[in-house]
Amino acid sequence: MIVVTADVLRRQLSSIFLAWGMSAEHAETAVTVMVETDLTGVDSHGVGMIPTYDRWFREGKINVRPDIRIVRERKSVAMIDADRSLGHAPSVKAMKLAIEKAKASGIGVVAVAHSNHFGAAGYYTLMAAREGVIGMSATNAGPILVPTFGREPRLGTNPISFAAPAKRNKPFWLDMATTTVAFGKVNIARRAGKPVPEGWALGEDGRPMTDSQRAFELRRLTPLGGTRELGSHKGYGLGAMVEILCSTLTGSWLAAVDPATGKAGDQNDIGHFFLALNPDLVREEGEFAEDMDRLIDMLHETPPADPAQPVLVAGDPEYASYEERSKSGIPMTDTLFEEVRLVSQNAGVPFLLGN
Amino acid sequence: MIVVTADVLRRQLSSIFLAWGMSAEHAETAVTVMVETDLTGVDSHGVGMIPTYDRWFREGKINVRPDIRIVRERKSVAMIDADRSLGHAPSVKAMKLAIEKAKASGIGVVAVAHSNHFGAAGYYTLMAAREGVIGMSATNAGPILVPTFGREPRLGTNPISFAAPAKRNKPFWLDMATTTVAFGKVNIARRAGKPVPEGWALGEDGRPMTDSQRAFELRRLTPLGGTRELGSHKGYGLGAMVEILCSTLTGSWLAAVDPATGKAGDQNDIGHFFLALNPDLVREEGEFAEDMDRLIDMLHETPPADPAQPVLVAGDPEYASYEERSKSGIPMTDTLFEEVRLVSQNAGVPFLLGN
Repeated sequence: MIVVTADVLRRQLSSIFLAWGMSAEHAETAVTVMVETDLTGVDSHGVGMIPTYDRWFREGKINVRPDIRIVRERKSVAMIDADRSLGHAPSVKAMKLAIEKAKASGIGVVAVAHSNHFGAAGYYTLMAAREGVIGMSATNAGPILVPTFGREPRLGTNPISFAAPAKRNKPFWLDMATTTVAFGKVNIARRAGKPVPEGWALGEDGRPMTDSQRAFELRRLTPLGGTRELGSHKGYGLGAMVEILCSTLTGSWLAAVDPATGKAGDQNDIGHFFLALNPDLVREEGEFAEDMDRLIDMLHETPPADPAQPVLVAGDPEYASYEERSKSGIPMTDTLFEEVRLVSQNAGVPFLLGN
Repeated sequence: MIVVTADVLRRQLSSIFLAWGMSAEHAETAVTVMVETDLTGVDSHGVGMIPTYDRWFREGKINVRPDIRIVRERKSVAMIDADRSLGHAPSVKAMKLAIEKAKASGIGVVAVAHSNHFGAAGYYTLMAAREGVIGMSATNAGPILVPTFGREPRLGTNPISFAAPAKRNKPFWLDMATTTVAFGKVNIARRAGKPVPEGWALGEDGRPMTDSQRAFELRRLTPLGGTRELGSHKGYGLGAMVEILCSTLTGSWLAAVDPATGKAGDQNDIGHFFLALNPDLVREEGEFAEDMDRLIDMLHETPPADPAQPVLVAGDPEYASYEERSKSGIPMTDTLFEEVRLVSQNAGVPFLLGN
């Protein structure tokens, strides 16, 4: 493991995006979302994505000079066309607009069409919670989830995030894929030469499989629940709900599959969903945040099965990581470190992480 | 099994509610929600609840002459006080208002405070889908879900429902508890003398347990995911999200626990959440419903693991049950049949089901 500071990582990513021709504003937004995500410990969705973004950029799949604009707008809803941009800039714009609408009318929903990977869904809901409103976000993605009773993937990991502000506690902050695990966990098991637990992945026949190498090659994940007996139809239903709110509501590619070729692309026409809800226009001002403290405290005080592992509330691990990494830096695998070196070379900018 | 027609069941339930002193309008609403739920095959949430409602009524926990009123209202959000009514009437009022707001401004959210059991969450989202808008609903309930790493229940089954209209297909229609299974399934295993699968229920030590008799007595269900390894922290997070949208947002009892006594009551101060979103104010009119057909068809056409069991879309089993039971009637266990006889006696009304 190599450890880098958030600051040098910001400068590195910024130099790459600017070299690609992104505007200073869009580069700044993408860098902020990515590095904040690394600080919270969600390694799969921060700098870990830059090799993929680099490939998409070189394949012409990312519009680095997009015209991100509001195409439809009503009192409480709007639609933004991302114009094939990387997802971070249109998503920050969308959540800001949703928050504005929530503050004025109680609730705001902003959908984003024709976008690309937006990083971690949780970044956007925390924006809302920090403004004192409830936030929800979701995105669709390329097919990897096998519907219950099926044997081929049809939906993405389709994550959903939800955050709600408290008064004394940090916001409740949930960010979860609707598959049982993210694909990265299969890869970690494969690298370690260990089997995956039954219920994570499926074979070509649609039956549970524990061979991590095969699971990595096949890319067939179960919906949350794992098996029918343990409720996989619920995870499948939630994944489909996210698909509806993201691709169907925006007219982006269904399951990120190119309708012209019928092939799953690299998520380069996906949709996102952002919702902000102002609790102070539903209840008397301030009461919601106080009751959030009661809920969070009650959950933390649940008697644990193992005294060494207290009961957590959504966001606890991410806040702990943020505090720790803000002081000690962001760890990167040697592989990723070298990949970022290559991306910098491709962009013709100095490699700053090695300094 | 005894089979009754929907019509005689309606008349039976109506006579009971009217004898309790409910208004004709409130009785009619509750009866409609309950019998529609029985027709869709969700036996746990229709007439199956009447023995419990009867007990609550006799204990004075249901206000049969409630003043159900809008206590706060903005352009796109509102709060309704159910005044300790049974949940059906305030919930139908709330979803109607949410749909109205969605049609005008794009989205509507209506929260219901100080309510009681509202039947199946899915009844209300289907109201929305039938009006051409997306619907979401949720309710909190008494503690039965054990948070991940915990050993005592802290949240309810906290169901969430989501429905979206299509053009040619029936609406996508999801209705799910955020626990791995509903408690009724543990009871079914107990009656059959069979163990429950590992991952449904926990013992007093917070560890998985398969003894269905003990599981029935202890009432400690896992969150969706079942175990930490299979993502139970996600089901726990979703359950907490529902708690926030229902009790915290409305100021109802946290986890249906009486704050005065610290005891879990019989859900007699719970909250509900209703959302309606008008896709025709986000996309061009009609495009959403057409794309819903593409999504639903694509999911139905997923190659199945077992050719005898095609891939389903949320709502399929309920629509099939509705069609079948509308023709052949609603089956009831002997036990429930006798319980309804007793409830009728308690209310002093004729027992109609035996005719």
